[in-house]
Amino acid sequence: MSMLTWILAESALETVPEALWRHPAVKHHSTRSGKPPSVLILDRSYHHAAMKTLKYGQKRGRPDIVHLSLLEALCSPLNKEGLLKIHVHSFGDQVISVSSQLRLPRNYNRFIGLMEQLFTLGKVPPSGQPLLVLEKKTLPELVSSINPSHVVAFSRIGKPFTLEEAVQELINEEKPVAIIGGFPIGHFTDTTTTLADEIISIDPEMLEACIVTSRLIYEYERAISVPKKRIGLSKAQSPSLSSIEEFSCRTRLPA
Amino acid sequence: MSMLTWILAESALETVPEALWRHPAVKHHSTRSGKPPSVLILDRSYHHAAMKTLKYGQKRGRPDIVHLSLLEALCSPLNKEGLLKIHVHSFGDQVISVSSQLRLPRNYNRFIGLMEQLFTLGKVPPSGQPLLVLEKKTLPELVSSINPSHVVAFSRIGKPFTLEEAVQELINEEKPVAIIGGFPIGHFTDTTTTLADEIISIDPEMLEACIVTSRLIYEYERAISVPKKRIGLSKAQSPSLSSIEEFSCRTRLPA
Repeated sequence: MSMLTWILAESALETVPEALWRHPAVKHHSTRSGKPPSVLILDRSYHHAAMKTLKYGQKRGRPDIVHLSLLEALCSPLNKEGLLKIHVHSFGDQVISVSSQLRLPRNYNRFIGLMEQLFTLGKVPPSGQPLLVLEKKTLPELVSSINPSHVVAFSRIGKPFTLEEAVQELINEEKPVAIIGGFPIGHFTDTTTTLADEIISIDPEMLEACIVTSRLIYEYERAISVPKKRIGLSKAQSPSLSSIEEFSCRTRLPA
Repeated sequence: MSMLTWILAESALETVPEALWRHPAVKHHSTRSGKPPSVLILDRSYHHAAMKTLKYGQKRGRPDIVHLSLLEALCSPLNKEGLLKIHVHSFGDQVISVSSQLRLPRNYNRFIGLMEQLFTLGKVPPSGQPLLVLEKKTLPELVSSINPSHVVAFSRIGKPFTLEEAVQELINEEKPVAIIGGFPIGHFTDTTTTLADEIISIDPEMLEACIVTSRLIYEYERAISVPKKRIGLSKAQSPSLSSIEEFSCRTRLPA
């Protein structure tokens, strides 16, 4: 059974660029949070005024997109089955490799704290087996290192197919890669689109990255019978009300 | 074509209970945010220490669950097609009726601000056609007012079925209702389970509410051919790169 590689590309996740460090909106946020501007994650909610003159500003400063999409990917049964490989490529050509074992904070502010730590130290946790690794790497470099047999990118301006049709092609590949945009508005750059064997549109309207992520992963699970297999297992085990233990895909990161 | 009613039940969303107002963790949060304790939304990220003695504390104080699940519901094509009705029932027996037109803030802190406004004023926006309405109402009262033809609740200790099987039953109903738990741990109360015609488990492990929500809605769309219909529309329109306008399910709420 093939493992699916999921890449959130051109994601709106980066630290505040140096040119904005002296802007009042950034200084205010820095003072309030007690952290230097260089450490802060660019966030339109706080830095909107500062971002007005930023190049490609509309595509940047939306770490919430990465947060929600990562939650959908990490908590999926596909990931629990060890059949999902997760990468986040950022606007500034950095790549985060995410361990399938990572239990991502649900709380947004804690997620931001984690990203600040990652962008400062390059990995999290700083010692031992890392769950998150940040490297300077372009998207072509990342894709080339994966050596995929087939790459599909999802974009509203792609060829219209249902997700079911798109996934049917992916599951027959040896090393399928799916690329989803991790930005709020606009389209992939040419660099990204040239990496894709196919660009597919699954809806005439723009869909949120987390929605495309959750549907893609579910459809992939469906196509390789993960739900039936897991439910079959469940039917065999027939859990009773009294013997239930709580499961969760969360585990705590070192503080 | 039947409209699906989605209820997030026993959701971990409420204001800080009066008994906790004087706890140092709550007072600290109140000072930092510049808001009185009575207005604050209970949140384990800030009030963990205060929640230790709280009755059913483990099921409470997780507004992020409501935030993510609502985003999945509101941004879905099913909602855009006008085929989804959205209610959030809270731990404290309050019910939020959510307009399908609502463009929910993506940023968690802004979402919390919105919920504080809602719990203070009872509706948002305060004047004109409300997009969110909060009422004191039990779950049985809510379900009875919907007068459903069939109610399915999703729980890990339900009968094992794939979501596909579960949804096949729902689409043939005149007024189907799906209940998903909006809490982090534990199970539905007896009050909730007795409302359901069926309790279904779609995975042997606990799944996040937002994951069950997105999958349920997608599976429902699939079963009534929404993706094919929308993509067919898209194929007919055949958008070109040059004629693309941005769509988004976001619209701003009055500040």
